[in-house]
Amino acid sequence: MKTSIATVSIAGSLREKITAISRAGFDGLEIFENDFVASKLSPSEFRKIASDHGLSIDLYQPFRDFEGVSESQLELNLERARYKFEIMHQLGVDTILACSNVATAVEDNKALFVDHLSQLADLAGKHSIKVAYEALAWGKYVSTYDRAWDLVRQVDHPNLGVCLDSFHILSRGSNLETISEIPGEKVFFLQLADAPLMSLDVLSWSRHHRLFPGEGGWDIADFVHRVLNTGYQGPLSLEIFNDVYRQGSPSVTARDGHRSLTYLQDEVRELRAAEQLPDLGLSRLPSKQSPEGFEFVEFAPGEGDEFEDMLKSLGFIRQGKHKRKNASLWVAGGARVVVNSAAVSRQPSLIGVGLDFHSQASVMDRMASLQYGLVPRDRLSDEADFGVVASPSGVHFNVSDAQVSDATWANEFGGSGKVDASGITGIDHVAIAVDPQDLDETTLFLRAALALDLQAELDLPSEYGLVRSRSANNETRTVRLALNVGPTSSAPKSGANHVAFSTNDIFATAAFVKKSRTNLLQVPENYYLDLRHRLGLDWDFIAQLQEYNILYDQDANGRFLHFYSVQLGKTFIEVVQRLGSYDGYGAYNSFIRLASQRAQDSQRALL
Amino acid sequence: MKTSIATVSIAGSLREKITAISRAGFDGLEIFENDFVASKLSPSEFRKIASDHGLSIDLYQPFRDFEGVSESQLELNLERARYKFEIMHQLGVDTILACSNVATAVEDNKALFVDHLSQLADLAGKHSIKVAYEALAWGKYVSTYDRAWDLVRQVDHPNLGVCLDSFHILSRGSNLETISEIPGEKVFFLQLADAPLMSLDVLSWSRHHRLFPGEGGWDIADFVHRVLNTGYQGPLSLEIFNDVYRQGSPSVTARDGHRSLTYLQDEVRELRAAEQLPDLGLSRLPSKQSPEGFEFVEFAPGEGDEFEDMLKSLGFIRQGKHKRKNASLWVAGGARVVVNSAAVSRQPSLIGVGLDFHSQASVMDRMASLQYGLVPRDRLSDEADFGVVASPSGVHFNVSDAQVSDATWANEFGGSGKVDASGITGIDHVAIAVDPQDLDETTLFLRAALALDLQAELDLPSEYGLVRSRSANNETRTVRLALNVGPTSSAPKSGANHVAFSTNDIFATAAFVKKSRTNLLQVPENYYLDLRHRLGLDWDFIAQLQEYNILYDQDANGRFLHFYSVQLGKTFIEVVQRLGSYDGYGAYNSFIRLASQRAQDSQRALL
Repeated sequence: MKTSIATVSIAGSLREKITAISRAGFDGLEIFENDFVASKLSPSEFRKIASDHGLSIDLYQPFRDFEGVSESQLELNLERARYKFEIMHQLGVDTILACSNVATAVEDNKALFVDHLSQLADLAGKHSIKVAYEALAWGKYVSTYDRAWDLVRQVDHPNLGVCLDSFHILSRGSNLETISEIPGEKVFFLQLADAPLMSLDVLSWSRHHRLFPGEGGWDIADFVHRVLNTGYQGPLSLEIFNDVYRQGSPSVTARDGHRSLTYLQDEVRELRAAEQLPDLGLSRLPSKQSPEGFEFVEFAPGEGDEFEDMLKSLGFIRQGKHKRKNASLWVAGGARVVVNSAAVSRQPSLIGVGLDFHSQASVMDRMASLQYGLVPRDRLSDEADFGVVASPSGVHFNVSDAQVSDATWANEFGGSGKVDASGITGIDHVAIAVDPQDLDETTLFLRAALALDLQAELDLPSEYGLVRSRSANNETRTVRLALNVGPTSSAPKSGANHVAFSTNDIFATAAFVKKSRTNLLQVPENYYLDLRHRLGLDWDFIAQLQEYNILYDQDANGRFLHFYSVQLGKTFIEVVQRLGSYDGYGAYNSFIRLASQRAQDSQRALL
Repeated sequence: MKTSIATVSIAGSLREKITAISRAGFDGLEIFENDFVASKLSPSEFRKIASDHGLSIDLYQPFRDFEGVSESQLELNLERARYKFEIMHQLGVDTILACSNVATAVEDNKALFVDHLSQLADLAGKHSIKVAYEALAWGKYVSTYDRAWDLVRQVDHPNLGVCLDSFHILSRGSNLETISEIPGEKVFFLQLADAPLMSLDVLSWSRHHRLFPGEGGWDIADFVHRVLNTGYQGPLSLEIFNDVYRQGSPSVTARDGHRSLTYLQDEVRELRAAEQLPDLGLSRLPSKQSPEGFEFVEFAPGEGDEFEDMLKSLGFIRQGKHKRKNASLWVAGGARVVVNSAAVSRQPSLIGVGLDFHSQASVMDRMASLQYGLVPRDRLSDEADFGVVASPSGVHFNVSDAQVSDATWANEFGGSGKVDASGITGIDHVAIAVDPQDLDETTLFLRAALALDLQAELDLPSEYGLVRSRSANNETRTVRLALNVGPTSSAPKSGANHVAFSTNDIFATAAFVKKSRTNLLQVPENYYLDLRHRLGLDWDFIAQLQEYNILYDQDANGRFLHFYSVQLGKTFIEVVQRLGSYDGYGAYNSFIRLASQRAQDSQRALL
């Protein structure tokens, strides 16, 4: 279907917006009046530039505070409409968005609203303009889409229809059944926005927190499915007010918006397919696949031997060096670590994650269709075949067909498969530090490209600000990722990616590690005293935890034991054991971990 | 009175917090349990360090989810309390904060709550501990202070009282009359926080947006006045959860918190004095004075002549060079501009504001009592006497006794007083760019130090993100300041301080300016076409505005006409005319101004 986006959704001058919207692949745009008014472009210049960029102008918006006003104000409002219609002719746009009155309506009077909207429709008819009337969620008297539709139906004029906006409708928790009562030809426009679920007044929520479909908490696919069932044939158009997008890169934001519509169309197409409805030209993506497991993690070792020494002390064995490349393979149980010495990084850092999928080709096609950045990879035909994608967070995701065989790994790196010195069994999760401005784009990547389920966002306190944390996983929990957004300032250590290895016996693993001189994270005694009384644990167990600096958490479904290395450069390592169906990451302990890392780090800095 | 602050209110490790709290001048602290649990300090070490820093530990907090639980849970909860009481003995703190149950209470049963709280009070009695019971605004069954007080009254135990927290009480909009029914000896603790007025769920509001008293929207002085009237004699204690403070400098945040309590005490003392009540040792500040007018603005000219050329083209005359310093005085009408060539700045920038007060000495005493940074000034005895304060925004405020005479200015700079070439009459307002983390501190400065009234915050859209803008003024509007917080990223031009000069005939002033070659900000034609129809103005007037690139706004009380220079380095100049009682700053036009500045700036960059 045709895609469009309101110019207010992205940063920049009108010219910059047009370029970014066109390059992202949209078919058209909605002109947000302020963007035009602040521009030096005349209507005809703007029209030509848009057209030269292959963009139609689909909507002129917004026209405010028209109906339900005093007689004298109505005259002024009609005069104002006449002027907009003239500008629209010069711009070559035939539809205007009229928002329900928020300010100047004088009384809640249906007959008055119908009368005024009829006059507007008559005037619009004379200018061959279509008026799409939209209930703003904070409209003075008209704030729900069913009331707006009721007025439009009463007016019954070919030049008056409704604009349906997912934000205004879903934020009010409106019953969506009424949508099916609206004939498609009376839906003059469809605006789409997602949003995080919040308890904030709708105006602030709308003005600051809208998101692209798939980045928030609503089922936008279901909403669009309902609207398409009316017979609506206009564009799918994004109208997003978001503090972060407003100040981001126009091209990055526009591309992510277009991607969200590609993903959305595919989801809607599947809903229609399930009901054996025609696809209406909705975009089709190669089918969604969740990863089946972790294949490996990849680190840059930094300048010294510190990182590889730590792997050794955790029971990893260096299986060998790559036969052509400056990289080594380290193995412990089912966990593989590639240490890529060719990667340029002064400090140790986690730079890549390898994931197994059922069909690599299909996943990579899907990534390409979603405009994610594919990274070329140097590979001989007998070497393991990974497709590489640069995720918005910067971490590279390596995509393989199911599991790569031990023989393939051995062919490239030598060695002979799994070793089990410390009890480490595999990779439990990978945590990725994300810049605040990249969080929403990364969320969409996890959902649309990796088909993971996102969990609710948590705020983790640290000594230097809150860390916003959100986890994602496949259904079987064999792949877990966590996104962490650190405080915006002065938190030098919050930006670390890390890997958590799993063990079936954390005490055995910890005992193994303790034999080496590895710097494990020291947990303060106060933590154990508090833990004892907070959860009513017995003293022997507490003593055992304390001996190995193991942190502990529990919930209704199970228990979680974990310990940490100190931070090495931009990364650190965690070892975890899950008991029962514990599904979290020890969020309660993160404050202890962050404070202890910082304390130990300043101590090390003094040595 | 004794002052205290919860450790959770500021960033850092426990040691860093203690140092910052002590240096800021507090008498004590509340230990937030997590800060202690994450610390390597034993209870006795912590106690000693606090004591060595002259701080008492006034409260152990929080004790959660105690009352209204199942029998088996109650046993665990009492055991948990027993452990806390032991830790408290080691810490030397005798009061614990018990929050109303948010999670584990099983039913809304008053008798059960009373029974459980009685058992807690009995246990506390055996340990000589006082339990301060607080209704959290999001408590499961107990969420208002009057309900908490009702339970405490029923329990009627010497070791159980209430903790009153301004956030939990004011956020619920509770009736404050009940406070007077609580005997002072049953108010075991008083926690203070202000907050911006928002429609957000109370939990999120509380966890992210609390502010120091005087920085938000509530009347905390009235609240404290009511509590002191009960006979409460404990500390005034700050408990602030704020995303910005959490990641700020511990010492800056602690100092601002202490300052807020000094200001608050003085306000409460005045309320008590008006009722002829004893002052209870509340801090006393030299009396509050608003400025009476602007005396001058001070600029660093940057490297070239561009800035002084602009002054010239606006009708300013260079009256002379300072007899000892590398500075010049420029005058137009009642507007004085000091161009300080000794100030180190590569680009033109506004660095100081001179304000007239009734009594300089008293204002400077007040500034000093509030711990603002006084700046020494090089001055001979026959020169104008300014006290200088570095505001949190970085701009220097120069304080003089009433108006400085023309003769004094002439003595220092030569020249002979006012000139009126272009019709500029004086200074209308000064706008100051503030970093997001300095906004709350700056707000308190305007209120507590300059005694200005703050207006509601506005969001001004720009091409690269929202600018949060808040204005402040004295009662007669002879002094107006505006604070602008730019987007956090990529908005190189949003961080400018600027001055707006007033004129009584903006067309005459604009005509004067047009004669020179000065680069005025060009306003796009689209703006004028829109303005014509938006406000129904006549074409002749519009043509006149457009000829001089004048922007226009109106409200119910009056009209506002203004034009701008282009941006020069980190500043620019505005000229405004107010008609009637228009009280704003043309917020509607800010998008046009910001977009045009950016457009013209990139054009200039190309030349």
